[in-house]
Amino acid sequence: MADKLPTSPVRGTRDLLPAECVLRDEALAAILRTYRSWGFARIETPALEHLELLTGGQGGENEKLIFKLMKRGEKLDLAKPGLTEDDVADCGLRFDLTVPLARYYAEHQAELPLPFKAIQVGPVWRAERPQKGRYRQFTQCDIDVIGEPGAQAEIELILATTEALAAVGLSGFTVRINDRRFLLAFAAHCDVNAPADQERLFIALDKLDKLGLDGVTDELEQQQLRGRLMRPHLELLQRASAEDDPLARFEPMAWAAGSLGVLRGIAASVRAALGGAARVAVDFTLVRGMGYYTGPIFEISAEGSPGSLAGGGRYDKMIGRVLGREVPACGFSIGFERLLLVLAERGWKPGTDGRRVALVYDAEAGQLDAALQRAAALRADGASVSLFAQRKKAGKQRADLEAQGFELESLSPRDGGAE
Amino acid sequence: MADKLPTSPVRGTRDLLPAECVLRDEALAAILRTYRSWGFARIETPALEHLELLTGGQGGENEKLIFKLMKRGEKLDLAKPGLTEDDVADCGLRFDLTVPLARYYAEHQAELPLPFKAIQVGPVWRAERPQKGRYRQFTQCDIDVIGEPGAQAEIELILATTEALAAVGLSGFTVRINDRRFLLAFAAHCDVNAPADQERLFIALDKLDKLGLDGVTDELEQQQLRGRLMRPHLELLQRASAEDDPLARFEPMAWAAGSLGVLRGIAASVRAALGGAARVAVDFTLVRGMGYYTGPIFEISAEGSPGSLAGGGRYDKMIGRVLGREVPACGFSIGFERLLLVLAERGWKPGTDGRRVALVYDAEAGQLDAALQRAAALRADGASVSLFAQRKKAGKQRADLEAQGFELESLSPRDGGAE
Repeated sequence: MADKLPTSPVRGTRDLLPAECVLRDEALAAILRTYRSWGFARIETPALEHLELLTGGQGGENEKLIFKLMKRGEKLDLAKPGLTEDDVADCGLRFDLTVPLARYYAEHQAELPLPFKAIQVGPVWRAERPQKGRYRQFTQCDIDVIGEPGAQAEIELILATTEALAAVGLSGFTVRINDRRFLLAFAAHCDVNAPADQERLFIALDKLDKLGLDGVTDELEQQQLRGRLMRPHLELLQRASAEDDPLARFEPMAWAAGSLGVLRGIAASVRAALGGAARVAVDFTLVRGMGYYTGPIFEISAEGSPGSLAGGGRYDKMIGRVLGREVPACGFSIGFERLLLVLAERGWKPGTDGRRVALVYDAEAGQLDAALQRAAALRADGASVSLFAQRKKAGKQRADLEAQGFELESLSPRDGGAE
Repeated sequence: MADKLPTSPVRGTRDLLPAECVLRDEALAAILRTYRSWGFARIETPALEHLELLTGGQGGENEKLIFKLMKRGEKLDLAKPGLTEDDVADCGLRFDLTVPLARYYAEHQAELPLPFKAIQVGPVWRAERPQKGRYRQFTQCDIDVIGEPGAQAEIELILATTEALAAVGLSGFTVRINDRRFLLAFAAHCDVNAPADQERLFIALDKLDKLGLDGVTDELEQQQLRGRLMRPHLELLQRASAEDDPLARFEPMAWAAGSLGVLRGIAASVRAALGGAARVAVDFTLVRGMGYYTGPIFEISAEGSPGSLAGGGRYDKMIGRVLGREVPACGFSIGFERLLLVLAERGWKPGTDGRRVALVYDAEAGQLDAALQRAAALRADGASVSLFAQRKKAGKQRADLEAQGFELESLSPRDGGAE
């Protein structure tokens, strides 16, 4: 007890209390049950990942937030002149589950079914500036379909994820969908052709709902991104997205038509399958941040929850980067931490926990063995049983246990005695 | 595809295939179900932990194996002269779940019930030299009782863990128990009094079953650890442990008597509760490595599995190190990775998985929506359903799916058609 040791968790991380774990476990069980019923199977990759892989440009801004691990033993030479980070670090903590999945698939493809439908749930780490509700370690919950080029993959991902969210008690879903290929055609139509300029255009576009048309036009002006007729085009995009059939507005246009067929098919199938359970909206202003998307992109939101609860899309080029051969791939990720906040706010109660019994016994009277026997019988009956030796202040102890939500049972002859 | 990226996991770590995850998930579910029925509740601490805490001397040899994380941004100054590891690293990955638990309890005690019964399951990291069956990231599965000074804690830990191992299909258990206080009394009786010498004596003692009496005596000679009458004492220890009632041999001896009462109580209660399900053996040569144990220590092995599958003990001083006030504590840890190896070898099959249906449809005939509808009906009926668009080589596709263990159903009029 000489030095004062820290008791709080490392900055930006957190401990989980028992009640938080119950909520996480039950929500995750409901989601996994749903995903498994759609034929997905869980896999796992290690937390540690190669730095070459993590810094390959697929992670966008996240690559700046990598926790790197120091070399150990004789491999670590801190006396070396002109030391760089590469001299000191030899691997890093994964910042998402998609980059490791590409490596995993390249390594194990011969042992995996085709198409391969994976569930991944696990912690990822990002060295972000800590702020309320944002942590440096958090859980991601992804499903991915690898090896399926057709829209069946997108449709199954969207339907399974909507059902998973319904399984934790949410409703009133809106599924927003768009296609990166339409966005690229739109950029070209605006005479914005350099890939970096297109990315900037998409980032601005993504803010249409927050900044409005004037705000976004201003931002594009400031960035000196003035393609052809930018403002009228943006206006059309925004207006069309609010219409009953946004696709109908662009399908007659030659520059757009070729990029909309898959989107119409997905919208129709998802609408048919979900019926009244969700509104399916083609939203041409939906962008999604990750640059690796190559086709349809999508998000799901639920009534009463701000922002989206899940997002994903097709990324057909990513696995090829590791494997050396292109493999179509498509994924959907539930924002698990945000979902838990929403569930906690709503007071979501997972299915009945069953009986929780506090069995109080008289230790001095040698009742422990009898208590163990009685507890075994209660457990065989489905109860969760905790044993408590009766304290001197028996009344206070009973009140405390009841306050903890226990159902009380006592073996003690002093049962109910005065304090 | 310019650079060749690595596809294998980081050295010493591994990926888990779907079948491995099924086994892990089902085994863990059975264990958690058991522990919850005993009133334990799951908690979680982050993977990242303070270096001061990890290097405080409680982790024994494991402290040499810490993965340290590099500082980031302006906090990292690699140009500083005379750079040390402390300049470069600011936290580390936890190497067990017990050291973080002490911090957790010190931080959250006001919000936790007393006694507090925790389940922890999660990955830990040790930079060991990779070798067959030993990984740098592996899962630990612990239960701990904090705040209970009496033997009820030990008894519940032993019974709950035996039941958890039975829940994954194991049987023929041997519970070995000893008490650190008896070992200390024994060392003192042998005139070995310096704590470091006592630790060396215990380490040698631990090898009695492997090296035999001669080997251990030789080792003690080499270490110049020659207390009073060492060899006859060791011989007595070994001989007594093989007797029907090892306690009876030492209880009459004044130097030992005071350290054996708790042990007799635990042995009697565990024996009464388990009946024929387990052999309960007091084994005076049982040591257990971690120096933080202060009282009873125990291990469980099962018929047909080499070595022990779970180990634990009482560590009453450890929480005080962080909290500044002593709190009794006692824990039991299942060697989860070893357990999984045993289960895989035995071909343990978790409960029925239910139906796994492959639903084949004709995409070109526009059957996707009908297939989605049929799949929903099958899922509502409890099946797990995967959709497959029929390929040209329909016969080969069917054979492949059957080989994967699917039950086949087809919507296609081309069903059964020639290849």
